[in-house]
Amino acid sequence: MRILVANANTTEAITEACAASARRAAASGTEVIAATPRFGPAVISSRAENIIAGHALLEVLAQHAGQVDAVVLAVSHDTALEAARQMMPCPVVSMTEAACFTACMIGGRFGLVTFGNVETYRELVTRHGLAGRLAGLGSIDVAAPEAVRDPEGVAAKLLPAIDALAAQGADSVILGGAALAGFDERLKGRAPLPLLDGVACATRMAEMLVRAALPKPRTGSFAAPSGRATKGLDARLAALLGG
Amino acid sequence: MRILVANANTTEAITEACAASARRAAASGTEVIAATPRFGPAVISSRAENIIAGHALLEVLAQHAGQVDAVVLAVSHDTALEAARQMMPCPVVSMTEAACFTACMIGGRFGLVTFGNVETYRELVTRHGLAGRLAGLGSIDVAAPEAVRDPEGVAAKLLPAIDALAAQGADSVILGGAALAGFDERLKGRAPLPLLDGVACATRMAEMLVRAALPKPRTGSFAAPSGRATKGLDARLAALLGG
Amino acid sequence: MRILVANANTTEAITEACAASARRAAASGTEVIAATPRFGPAVISSRAENIIAGHALLEVLAQHAGQVDAVVLAVSHDTALEAARQMMPCPVVSMTEAACFTACMIGGRFGLVTFGNVETYRELVTRHGLAGRLAGLGSIDVAAPEAVRDPEGVAAKLLPAIDALAAQGADSVILGGAALAGFDERLKGRAPLPLLDGVACATRMAEMLVRAALPKPRTGSFAAPSGRATKGLDARLAALLGG
Amino acid sequence: MRILVANANTTEAITEACAASARRAAASGTEVIAATPRFGPAVISSRAENIIAGHALLEVLAQHAGQVDAVVLAVSHDTALEAARQMMPCPVVSMTEAACFTACMIGGRFGLVTFGNVETYRELVTRHGLAGRLAGLGSIDVAAPEAVRDPEGVAAKLLPAIDALAAQGADSVILGGAALAGFDERLKGRAPLPLLDGVACATRMAEMLVRAALPKPRTGSFAAPSGRATKGLDARLAALLGG
Amino acid sequence: MRILVANANTTEAITEACAASARRAAASGTEVIAATPRFGPAVISSRAENIIAGHALLEVLAQHAGQVDAVVLAVSHDTALEAARQMMPCPVVSMTEAACFTACMIGGRFGLVTFGNVETYRELVTRHGLAGRLAGLGSIDVAAPEAVRDPEGVAAKLLPAIDALAAQGADSVILGGAALAGFDERLKGRAPLPLLDGVACATRMAEMLVRAALPKPRTGSFAAPSGRATKGLDARLAALLGG
Amino acid sequence: MRILVANANTTEAITEACAASARRAAASGTEVIAATPRFGPAVISSRAENIIAGHALLEVLAQHAGQVDAVVLAVSHDTALEAARQMMPCPVVSMTEAACFTACMIGGRFGLVTFGNVETYRELVTRHGLAGRLAGLGSIDVAAPEAVRDPEGVAAKLLPAIDALAAQGADSVILGGAALAGFDERLKGRAPLPLLDGVACATRMAEMLVRAALPKPRTGSFAAPSGRATKGLDARLAALLGG
Repeated sequence: MRILVANANTTEAITEACAASARRAAASGTEVIAATPRFGPAVISSRAENIIAGHALLEVLAQHAGQVDAVVLAVSHDTALEAARQMMPCPVVSMTEAACFTACMIGGRFGLVTFGNVETYRELVTRHGLAGRLAGLGSIDVAAPEAVRDPEGVAAKLLPAIDALAAQGADSVILGGAALAGFDERLKGRAPLPLLDGVACATRMAEMLVRAALPKPRTGSFAAPSGRATKGLDARLAALLGG
Repeated sequence: MRILVANANTTEAITEACAASARRAAASGTEVIAATPRFGPAVISSRAENIIAGHALLEVLAQHAGQVDAVVLAVSHDTALEAARQMMPCPVVSMTEAACFTACMIGGRFGLVTFGNVETYRELVTRHGLAGRLAGLGSIDVAAPEAVRDPEGVAAKLLPAIDALAAQGADSVILGGAALAGFDERLKGRAPLPLLDGVACATRMAEMLVRAALPKPRTGSFAAPSGRATKGLDARLAALLGG
Repeated sequence: MRILVANANTTEAITEACAASARRAAASGTEVIAATPRFGPAVISSRAENIIAGHALLEVLAQHAGQVDAVVLAVSHDTALEAARQMMPCPVVSMTEAACFTACMIGGRFGLVTFGNVETYRELVTRHGLAGRLAGLGSIDVAAPEAVRDPEGVAAKLLPAIDALAAQGADSVILGGAALAGFDERLKGRAPLPLLDGVACATRMAEMLVRAALPKPRTGSFAAPSGRATKGLDARLAALLGG
Repeated sequence: MRILVANANTTEAITEACAASARRAAASGTEVIAATPRFGPAVISSRAENIIAGHALLEVLAQHAGQVDAVVLAVSHDTALEAARQMMPCPVVSMTEAACFTACMIGGRFGLVTFGNVETYRELVTRHGLAGRLAGLGSIDVAAPEAVRDPEGVAAKLLPAIDALAAQGADSVILGGAALAGFDERLKGRAPLPLLDGVACATRMAEMLVRAALPKPRTGSFAAPSGRATKGLDARLAALLGG
Repeated sequence: MRILVANANTTEAITEACAASARRAAASGTEVIAATPRFGPAVISSRAENIIAGHALLEVLAQHAGQVDAVVLAVSHDTALEAARQMMPCPVVSMTEAACFTACMIGGRFGLVTFGNVETYRELVTRHGLAGRLAGLGSIDVAAPEAVRDPEGVAAKLLPAIDALAAQGADSVILGGAALAGFDERLKGRAPLPLLDGVACATRMAEMLVRAALPKPRTGSFAAPSGRATKGLDARLAALLGG
Repeated sequence: MRILVANANTTEAITEACAASARRAAASGTEVIAATPRFGPAVISSRAENIIAGHALLEVLAQHAGQVDAVVLAVSHDTALEAARQMMPCPVVSMTEAACFTACMIGGRFGLVTFGNVETYRELVTRHGLAGRLAGLGSIDVAAPEAVRDPEGVAAKLLPAIDALAAQGADSVILGGAALAGFDERLKGRAPLPLLDGVACATRMAEMLVRAALPKPRTGSFAAPSGRATKGLDARLAALLGG
């Protein structure tokens, strides 16, 4: 089985880190390939960057349509997820949704901890229809590069944030954002709750869906688009929509 | 006051129709200018097209940042609305949200009627937090060009759909999609409920917000982005994010 | 255009303050007239007073039916709003609903700050169907007259309350209650979020609806009442219901 | 125990019918007295009438404050319920809320059937926080007087409406509106679901609350009002608020 | 009238305490009998114990089917409530649901305070469809036996928890768990809000339903089961399901 | 990897059918073992049977605690799911929840079709927090044995029910109830939407969770119970709770 891990920002180091995370999570027979968009934000931290990254991500996916068995979106905002799901001929799963659904199968409510502003994550969980299972959102005050430079310092900030989410009723905690990849392993045994890494969750969910071999819906808003006229798009993306 | 009516698809005829609709709705001192994206779908009818159109729309907006007093998004999917609102230094209002909020001030619950699949409109109303005020969604079985070629034929299909929404408890009906522009006037007196044209509603809301002269939030997820690094974007869009 | 600013309590000084606020917000061609009920509470601060004020308000409105182009309800509890909307032949908008819908077009979630108990405001936002967009409610511990006597003292209490709402995810803050009129201007530049004055928002929304010239629904629970038999009511109110 | 059955409209025949219904439902030691407002609508069928009736109802209640052990609001719109509850020194229960809570203790979801428009009942159930337990709303096309003149004709229309609500998942059906009083008995054995008469439910709930002898909250928005200044009100109502 | 107070755990002392509480709340003509399951947990404090207790409780109820006029489930988790309601030929009411519905008729939102983890109570209130009326959940850090050994010490911990719920908007507070029985009386006059004892509330609600004499639904998921084949069950329980 | 497929009713033929379904869905290295409760209903079709089956199911699980890597609950009511999840030292997944979460990753909203009454499925989807993603529930009028005796006759009834759910906005349809096992394969290519078999979905999700190797929460309402005193229980179940 061949899974594409598609980053939505243009930072190749993040693509590689996510691909490594996917490879650790993948079953032995799974081949993980990775891709980085041609254009867009270095890191997504505003709403406009997220929209632009959606286009960039769809362009990347179109290059791989028909050549992979599933796609993992390596972006914690689940950027362009429903669009990718409709457009691609194979299963598409994204980081945060996969972590949310995994969390729902190991406990009641879950928390999410990330860097910076949490409101777009609240919107994301609501978009997935899971607001009733969200115990709380936590934010730690560190810059993303610290996670690499001083992981124990970041861990020391994560642990009380996780405790606070436990006190709000969380049974597990999603690590939001690629910079926290690997902290599930680092904090195993130290945190009172299971920690969920989005790329790992999404990789396992993608494998699960490939094995399920479900047909695409032939009707409704997730049926594959066809015959769409476009202008100025990458040739393969245009072809996929126009086919 | 100068308002930009920004289409999200690349069909100039639709841009012009929306601009005309905005001009009819605008106050006497308001200048309406219009813009069409450089790239993207001819018409948005899949989720992927909507994402791509979001990028195209932001690019168009960036060309006008600082030169207009407000923006009307002339796209019934409210494409990239929150992103545009965060990014632009002026008020941004979109068709369907403006129609929804107008509907909320003239009755209790509202309906929406459109061509084709209604599920993305259900998601849109939910995204705006207004699911509790949605009485129902109706769909008429016509192709968009018929609205121009045989408006009375389309009217004959709209009226029973409006009656059905009234029976479901709607106090007003939003006309979803640019192809239904003008049908609010055509059906005035014939329909039992007020009909809401999205571009007209958004134009009036944009004027209202310009007059309100509210400052932008300086904190949170709608504070203006700055210092964002990007790659391969239109120069003005990149500058607006990087500024 | 002629807009009636109708107070729901019997304190003329508050009517005048609200009318002044409406005049500041109104467009140049708008004439603002004001009215105060004949009976009822001096200030609404219990649920019973709010109900009584509803009747008093409808009586005031009936005196002006047919003579004004729109009505602004100058009461932060949106007292009798839906009833007034059904009864009157012109648009009716109220303070807090207008502020809520304005807030929804400049950010994601909003907060509200007021004097005293906040629970009736929570019920009000829920009644408008907007619970999902409410970030939080704040209360400052001052008596209403202080707002006039020591505005800077009140400002000093408002600012941390606004900061607290920002921390809860608000992108704007509604100033609840007539006593806070003018604090949006006073705190401009000092608060991190846009502040919304209800009377100003409602005045602009009323102008917007007058310009929209939407017909009343002819069916459903907002269609104009007629042929209603009543007893002991003010003659014009009885006539409006019985007509 | 002495229970006041307070009508909110001015039609004494309806007051008497409701009092009779309360007496049938009451325990042997309960004395039921009845009261009709001095002013207001003959029958409530618009939103404005409902607001006016709220004031009229509070005035009636104030005449009895301190002289009754509980109040039953004999109005299917639960008019002024929360206000009456805050204002009165004794328990206050209303028709539809009592029927809803009774329904919740005999099944999962419930339906409601009434004459005419159902939307205000949908709002009412939502105001009580029970939207999740509402299976559906039904409307029968008869004028209220028919219920007296041709009860079997009305029964013949009620039965299919009840069946339709059963098919939507209702486990019981609330009879909405005083005109349907007694149809719970008339249809016993003929309808597949238990039918709930609001006045009877409220009378039993009022007795239950009297026996519970719970203190009033001393804080929050249901604590008794005091020291309120008013103008032009009935003397006892003014005294109750001002005390 | 004869009411069965059925405990769901196997601790007879708790059964007796609950029966005593029911007798204090019951009307003079009501006979209260009590029953304890034959098997199951000594105290329910895990999800598995709650499921097992559900079976044990149904077995106890089956022994009394046809011999009592109503059942009070003396278990704060409302264990097996809907099942008991469907199965038994008489009304069944449980502690926490009865307290919730009572709370809804004396104020707007309510709180609940208990020992230990509160999340299963949040799930319970949500299961009853009342999440919108829950102001908050509080937990005090004491072991259940302390309530008997040092009631004033427990009271000293309850009072600040009640104050905290008042500050969150509660108009009344439910005492969760049998160990807190009697604290409503002990704290009367000391707490700012009415306190609700579940067994007392349920007893009064059961009496109310007996007096209502509503028929069981003949259709839907609460219609009495019949003809069900089972294996290895208590003979009377098997007979009740198979009848 | 060793997965236990645990039926909750006592019909071994259904256990075997579910185990066969699990084996078809399982990866090559997965061993599926099956178990049937010692006592309880032959088929669960009332609320009481569901509660009893919960106990029976926990007893079966306790026999296998520590000997399997995961558990699949082969019961479409997700009976005792949260309790089993808390109690067992390994992942536990149930039929309908797994189908729901799978559905959420291949489309927007889903439908569910089953035999007989649908209301308990509505409650189940709500219990999982997914009411917002439920497009509709369908029921076909056949007895369960027909699915074996006349599968094409049942298929002929399923297809229009699936079409009806598609028209309500479903992007996939869950087959509710063990009797419909295998109809996903039978209708592949004939139905317009992907069909989801609960046991197959749960088996794949269980494998996924085993591979994730997440620790159990050490705090909160899903932490493993210990030290619980019980009476009259199966020895292994008692030991697991008392351990």
